[in-house]
Amino acid sequence: MRILGIDPGFALVGFGIVEAGKNGLKAGKYGHISTESGLPVPDRLKILYDDMSTVIAEYKPDVVAVEELFFNKNVKTAIVASHARGVLVLAAVNAGLEVAEYTPLQVKQAVVGYGRATKQQVQLMVTRLLALKEVPKPDDTADALAVAICHANSAKMENIGHDSTYRRQNRR
Amino acid sequence: MRILGIDPGFALVGFGIVEAGKNGLKAGKYGHISTESGLPVPDRLKILYDDMSTVIAEYKPDVVAVEELFFNKNVKTAIVASHARGVLVLAAVNAGLEVAEYTPLQVKQAVVGYGRATKQQVQLMVTRLLALKEVPKPDDTADALAVAICHANSAKMENIGHDSTYRRQNRR
Repeated sequence: MRILGIDPGFALVGFGIVEAGKNGLKAGKYGHISTESGLPVPDRLKILYDDMSTVIAEYKPDVVAVEELFFNKNVKTAIVASHARGVLVLAAVNAGLEVAEYTPLQVKQAVVGYGRATKQQVQLMVTRLLALKEVPKPDDTADALAVAICHANSAKMENIGHDSTYRRQNRR
Repeated sequence: MRILGIDPGFALVGFGIVEAGKNGLKAGKYGHISTESGLPVPDRLKILYDDMSTVIAEYKPDVVAVEELFFNKNVKTAIVASHARGVLVLAAVNAGLEVAEYTPLQVKQAVVGYGRATKQQVQLMVTRLLALKEVPKPDDTADALAVAICHANSAKMENIGHDSTYRRQNRR
């Protein structure tokens, strides 16, 4: 199973491919999409949508795993980031792919085994689990790989004793 | 100039066409798009995007005016509504249209002449300005027409002594 993990954002979006097979996890291509702060919002949304559609067309994932946004205070930041996340999810759906959504807590628990893990702990575990030579940069890229790993683990767990309905269960 | 006004939302989106010509304003088609609460979020985003793309293809506006979201407390609601607004704006940009954005305050000032106008006052003025026989329902539809009227007035104002650069100025 080829999983595309996405760490959504407006100025910077991380993405990363994780191949989950019989021999465990393997990193595929990873990187980031960025939009210039000087551009109008509608144009930046189009760049995010077009570039993510290109990433999907190029790397042909079987499923897309997107981290959920979490904000407890700054409503303005939440509004901007959610516009971006909306078009990123749409890029996946318009490519005919299933979208699995995970909270930051779920991602940390899946990757580090501890929901309150630090960003550094997550990055180190991603590097180790995927046998990478160095921590993927920028941070958003490592986070995207973490979401993909989270989906690989959740899918594996769900498949014990079940059929392949796990994707549906991860959707709201 | 044919303006498509949009009152964005996740469960319910209002839209309305306003024709702004030499003889003033005239209402074109108006209505709403709705998504079922039981569906997964990615599917609902796709419905909003597809339906808004259909509205645009059918009514062929020259410009799209979208109300900005305003939330001061409920971050969860802001996140969900912003996902929706993101894909609605994208539908306009992907159709090659300019997107003008107005705050609720700007819309009220343009339509009622008073930034703290009530929803009812806005609806009454929309009905009067467009010479409609009754208040458009649901509320979201009247709000969408209000945003279109706001753009018609702003465009007119900006055009006094300027060329047609008003669209750019309304964009963030």
